[in-house]
Amino acid sequence: MKNPVFVLAPDSFKESMTAKEVCIAMEKGIKKALPEAVCIQVPMADGGEGTVQSLVDATEGNIYYQTVTGPLGQPVTAHFGILGDGETAAIEMASASGIHLVTKETKNPLITTTYGTGELIKACLDKGVKKIIIGIGGSVTNDGGAGMAQALGVKFLDENGELLGFGGGSLGRLAKVEMDNLDPRLKETQIFVASDVTNPLCGENGASNVFGPQKGATPEMVQFLDQNLAHYAAILHNQLGKDIKEIPGAGAAGGLGAGLLVFTNAQLKRGIDLVIEYTGLEQKVKEADFVLTGEGGIDFQTQFGKTPYGVAQTAKRHGKTVIAIAGYVGENIEILYDKGIDAIFGMLPQAMSLEEALITGQKNIETTCENIARLVTINNGAGKMA
Amino acid sequence: MKNPVFVLAPDSFKESMTAKEVCIAMEKGIKKALPEAVCIQVPMADGGEGTVQSLVDATEGNIYYQTVTGPLGQPVTAHFGILGDGETAAIEMASASGIHLVTKETKNPLITTTYGTGELIKACLDKGVKKIIIGIGGSVTNDGGAGMAQALGVKFLDENGELLGFGGGSLGRLAKVEMDNLDPRLKETQIFVASDVTNPLCGENGASNVFGPQKGATPEMVQFLDQNLAHYAAILHNQLGKDIKEIPGAGAAGGLGAGLLVFTNAQLKRGIDLVIEYTGLEQKVKEADFVLTGEGGIDFQTQFGKTPYGVAQTAKRHGKTVIAIAGYVGENIEILYDKGIDAIFGMLPQAMSLEEALITGQKNIETTCENIARLVTINNGAGKMA
Repeated sequence: MKNPVFVLAPDSFKESMTAKEVCIAMEKGIKKALPEAVCIQVPMADGGEGTVQSLVDATEGNIYYQTVTGPLGQPVTAHFGILGDGETAAIEMASASGIHLVTKETKNPLITTTYGTGELIKACLDKGVKKIIIGIGGSVTNDGGAGMAQALGVKFLDENGELLGFGGGSLGRLAKVEMDNLDPRLKETQIFVASDVTNPLCGENGASNVFGPQKGATPEMVQFLDQNLAHYAAILHNQLGKDIKEIPGAGAAGGLGAGLLVFTNAQLKRGIDLVIEYTGLEQKVKEADFVLTGEGGIDFQTQFGKTPYGVAQTAKRHGKTVIAIAGYVGENIEILYDKGIDAIFGMLPQAMSLEEALITGQKNIETTCENIARLVTINNGAGKMA
Repeated sequence: MKNPVFVLAPDSFKESMTAKEVCIAMEKGIKKALPEAVCIQVPMADGGEGTVQSLVDATEGNIYYQTVTGPLGQPVTAHFGILGDGETAAIEMASASGIHLVTKETKNPLITTTYGTGELIKACLDKGVKKIIIGIGGSVTNDGGAGMAQALGVKFLDENGELLGFGGGSLGRLAKVEMDNLDPRLKETQIFVASDVTNPLCGENGASNVFGPQKGATPEMVQFLDQNLAHYAAILHNQLGKDIKEIPGAGAAGGLGAGLLVFTNAQLKRGIDLVIEYTGLEQKVKEADFVLTGEGGIDFQTQFGKTPYGVAQTAKRHGKTVIAIAGYVGENIEILYDKGIDAIFGMLPQAMSLEEALITGQKNIETTCENIARLVTINNGAGKMA
């Protein structure tokens, strides 16, 4: 009998473990049961928080830190990753322009800017990369990506030829877009926007209406911001010939999706699909006897592009057994069985508080994976049934 | 492929579910995954709390209620079971003489009596049974089983020919034992004492020293009670020719073990072995592809005669896969893998309080068993490995 091969492809467990840490705990548990097992660690993500860390971990790349302009103009220390191939960078826009960088009191989508995200893109270009993956969840901005474009050399002027300030509140006064100083390296750089959002830039389902309120917009501000983004889109259409008003996903991250589509060589892709591609998951899964995945929480929403779903879909193309682990196993998980997840296990060994569950995550994953490994390789009952 | 057969042999989950309820939840989960599965329910116990219920459930017997004399002389409603064979009864001594029947204030091993347990035995005899299984955990008595014997017709007299009162505190005055009125049916009745305790009646490891304090004995009372039991044993030896002073297990349940050995046709047996025998577990296990067991809590102590251990030992004689489930999975469970339990799973789907865990037990068992069933019958990875 050949040694069993386990591909370990979990997401991070939010507030508890990075995906890499989950992989290590999984392997430790499996090896306890089966010292001869082969474990292939593929830390995963779905484009959300932890995506840079996972892509770097999965490809043995590096994390870099960079001081950039925060959403309120304040300096913030953001990070980006260079993947193991040396030619692909990964950014989470939230790192520079995220909602965790403002307080409840300072939230103000009229002035918050994606400028820092543009600076992060510039930092990646300075590393000589050819591709940039940008995760755009968790933004606190509503500026249509104008700040990002400003950081990369675009000038937004009002009818008096004055430069516009930061934030979606200024975009209504936009009269002219000057592209002369746009960073020329962007032309040769492929940008992949990891986004599961399909909202258009404007209107009822647009950025301002759907995501504005959580960024601090009052109903009046929502209306104002929506009008401004519509004006912004019209100017971009007129002056640059790019019509992004109706593109699904243009409304992601307060319209950063739209900005990236207009000013860079960008494609929108599902986050999990990008991560699967850049971690080489499919190739690795081919070698597997069993695929383990997991996430802090798994429920029926997991089917909407979350990591365990993406991993399962990939594994099932090759007929592999997929087992998922979670700290929180929610309602109606049955739907996931049809989506390729063969079995789902909670991992808590006893009644405990959430705080304790977060602290004991690694040990609990280890024990659960040890027992899963024992069960799936038992050479009697299971064998007999097959 | 034949339909998979699951033998379901859990203990009760204390304060949450009877063993039968656990079986039902297990079957529900398994059938969700495998509607064609055959489930054989064998509610188990280990001689402790829930033993009567499980034996009755496993054999389709009946529970009966009987008002008897409580440990302090108060009337209490106790219960006993008649197994499906109609000729075997089951008693838990705690039902009549248990620690839950006194308060912290009224605990007093000088006067607490096993009289009610004797009345329960009598009630079983009245049902015409030939065998009685007695679980003797949870006692609050230290009377050497004298009360039990009194209820069945034995007279204990002091040197003035006066009847002794209840409790271990009186036994020092014992001068004469009169057996004339002992219930004659006891001679033809086999009594199996389910006990995992190996303590002798007297001395350092005897009933009074080891178990007296938890029944309310002060150090002085412990010494007095120990002397009294030694005197009691000497009188029984002299007058009846039965020497029970050094028999392992005679000290169980405040010396009820000794009393049963002297006054009835009793044998001490491990609780789990009796339950395995009377539920016919071994025969049923032979049919199984998989054996599921479980208990509210599983830890390294499970190996000392707890239900999952006993079930695993039985199943392993027939080479079956054994999977255990628990609400609490403790430390150092690795030892159990060598004792025949192939895998152990917790069942909590998220961080929660103990109270919530107890309330949601059935749902959690159902989901966990559904996923175990899915995993062990997956016809690819597992099959390939075999």
